[in-house]
Amino acid sequence: MDITHYMQALGQGARQASRQMAAASTAAKNDALNAIATRIRSRAEELLAANARDLDQARADGLEPALLDRLTLTAKGIESMATGLEQIAALPDPVGEISDVKRRPSGIQVGHMRVPLGVVGIIYEARPNVTADAAGLCIKSGNAAILRGGKEALHCNQAIAACVREGLEHAGLPAAGVQVVETTDRAAVGALITMPEFVDVIVPRGGKGLIARISQEARVPVIKHLDGNCHVYLDDAADIQKALPIVENSKTQRYGTCNTAESLLVARARANELLPQVGALLAAKGVELRCCPESLEILAAGNIPEELIRMADESDWREEYLAPIIAIRVVAGLDEAIDHINRYSSQHTEAIVTENHSHAMRFLREVDSSSVMVNASTRFADGFEYGLGAEIGISTDKIHARGPVGLEGLTSQKWIVFGNGEVRR
Amino acid sequence: MDITHYMQALGQGARQASRQMAAASTAAKNDALNAIATRIRSRAEELLAANARDLDQARADGLEPALLDRLTLTAKGIESMATGLEQIAALPDPVGEISDVKRRPSGIQVGHMRVPLGVVGIIYEARPNVTADAAGLCIKSGNAAILRGGKEALHCNQAIAACVREGLEHAGLPAAGVQVVETTDRAAVGALITMPEFVDVIVPRGGKGLIARISQEARVPVIKHLDGNCHVYLDDAADIQKALPIVENSKTQRYGTCNTAESLLVARARANELLPQVGALLAAKGVELRCCPESLEILAAGNIPEELIRMADESDWREEYLAPIIAIRVVAGLDEAIDHINRYSSQHTEAIVTENHSHAMRFLREVDSSSVMVNASTRFADGFEYGLGAEIGISTDKIHARGPVGLEGLTSQKWIVFGNGEVRR
Repeated sequence: MDITHYMQALGQGARQASRQMAAASTAAKNDALNAIATRIRSRAEELLAANARDLDQARADGLEPALLDRLTLTAKGIESMATGLEQIAALPDPVGEISDVKRRPSGIQVGHMRVPLGVVGIIYEARPNVTADAAGLCIKSGNAAILRGGKEALHCNQAIAACVREGLEHAGLPAAGVQVVETTDRAAVGALITMPEFVDVIVPRGGKGLIARISQEARVPVIKHLDGNCHVYLDDAADIQKALPIVENSKTQRYGTCNTAESLLVARARANELLPQVGALLAAKGVELRCCPESLEILAAGNIPEELIRMADESDWREEYLAPIIAIRVVAGLDEAIDHINRYSSQHTEAIVTENHSHAMRFLREVDSSSVMVNASTRFADGFEYGLGAEIGISTDKIHARGPVGLEGLTSQKWIVFGNGEVRR
Repeated sequence: MDITHYMQALGQGARQASRQMAAASTAAKNDALNAIATRIRSRAEELLAANARDLDQARADGLEPALLDRLTLTAKGIESMATGLEQIAALPDPVGEISDVKRRPSGIQVGHMRVPLGVVGIIYEARPNVTADAAGLCIKSGNAAILRGGKEALHCNQAIAACVREGLEHAGLPAAGVQVVETTDRAAVGALITMPEFVDVIVPRGGKGLIARISQEARVPVIKHLDGNCHVYLDDAADIQKALPIVENSKTQRYGTCNTAESLLVARARANELLPQVGALLAAKGVELRCCPESLEILAAGNIPEELIRMADESDWREEYLAPIIAIRVVAGLDEAIDHINRYSSQHTEAIVTENHSHAMRFLREVDSSSVMVNASTRFADGFEYGLGAEIGISTDKIHARGPVGLEGLTSQKWIVFGNGEVRR
């Protein structure tokens, strides 16, 4: 099979289908989403069996624990895929929405209309739920999609893709509205990202290597999801009753996700009080502490097992561990915390714990990340938690969409003008 | 001078200045804008003299009329630059704007905050007003800017750049907030578009060759302004009293601008009635008509001088003439008009002339261009006319910003979360 030819055929199909998807009625799109959800639910055992085959292979290939965690599909995960699709169906249709219409001195009325992007190419690794979420979001936002999942999730993705295809057909929408690339040849990615005539935007989800390669080679705009080196900063005005659960939840609720905290900053004025309690909490969960000299001195005086504590080096401030490890640094206060974050963060998600209003507002304004939080766990940076229904990724880019990308991120606004024969003077 | 070194120094300066620009108060930014306007006005003669030097050189180099038109600065043009800056000062400051805050079931409140993009690199050709407009928009939107204007406008750009620099300093803002590249070496462009560490977005304005090269080589997101092959469609329900002035204004008000109409489509049912009048109107202004066989037959029967009428070929449907030439085609009706536009248009601006409401709404929804108009001249597709104060370009991209790009297009929204100790379950 000639990969370039194969991908161009997919692209042509998608471009053609995109016109029907853009013009589809809200009812037809919702019908398709609900039909897909029904199929995913009724085939739960089939999906779990396909996932088990993928997991066996992945374990045999020695996949890392964090990646195995992402690959794992549970009964709860299946239900949440189906619910996600139903939630997307329940969301307002963004396509055709007219807003901000204003009359201008010339007499014309100028406003915006929300429209699909066209054809969205999504490249992702071993997370089977992405197939359902991405298909759902693209359908509702009136786009055609080409999905290229990781080879580790191949069997599960194919089973989900069958549900999607049947759901589209059930609703009278073109099966080519969502196409899954059925080859694991890496050349398929190279072709997908260099067909501006067929693909309007690429959303890559995966490791740094993949993203770097795609950004380098793409001839199509890319909505990037880079790594998540997220910070929690315990301010000198932190409430300890909020600080402890937020650090624990941000770091330990799940290790393999991009919104997990990887660095902890503590204001010097509170370090002696807060660090021993935070350290004990994290060590009890087996989290390794990589400390600046000052925090090391405070923490080493406690009962942290030796194998769970050591000096951090410069690289730790930039690391996305995706593992039970956290970098810890004492800072002078708010200014140094903001400087540290803007220097080392991957601009994903950062949280401040503080009761001081001015500190909270300065942190929100001056920290240059896609999600900035006051007194909440970084784990909330997520399409479901933000009310988007589902997310297609968390963008660490600065243009178009930042943070969790849902329906709006898959559309853009064109200008519309209502005139009555006006000409320009 | 080592160009790469020079550009990196500019980049470093811009990155550093961008933090101050982002944190600048609205008052300081407005102060700078008004101070620049004052300087531009009081140095009008100096600017005209600089422009005259540029024009002499350009004429000697045999620059095309459309480009000479763009290069020309008049007293009115200078006044409109100054007014533009004052209008930008009068606009609300978009930076820090909080919107859409909603409480989620988890207890957190989620919303958006508008923030600058960071450092904007603008590459443009011989339009001196772009220097003032771009500087003004970047300052107000809290960005640092690196401006690289066309060598044809060098003297005029430098004179404007001096006003900008002094205005920034007058307001206590960093002079590096807006930097003008002071070399005409083309390698400067290559360096500017491959410094993602210093530049967050590139806005190129210029010929297709320039844009193509930049899109190909950039390692930074690009807000593209491609060509403007704009269409006017006279529907079977067109009001002739609106149709004639709209065609005349869209085509002939100015030939060298990207929102000038280059193609005219006429519904077959009205072709015999409308075409002779439209043809006479355009021919009287010396516009050459390049016609499909059907329109040629109708128009050739009239009094159009022979040298102003000929058969169109396939390439005419894609052409941006920037000259007194228009392509004319008879179509069956609305569907064929939409198909023709979506096939040949550069997705800039299209207008329908119709009294039929359903036709108008279908045209608005189904034509996939950055501006879509009913009963108005395509010449309205412009930042001033849309009320943006000024525009940094007209984007024909589909992500981030479509159409005229003003303050909003130079910002993006991050997510903010107000919590009270919430953690994720």
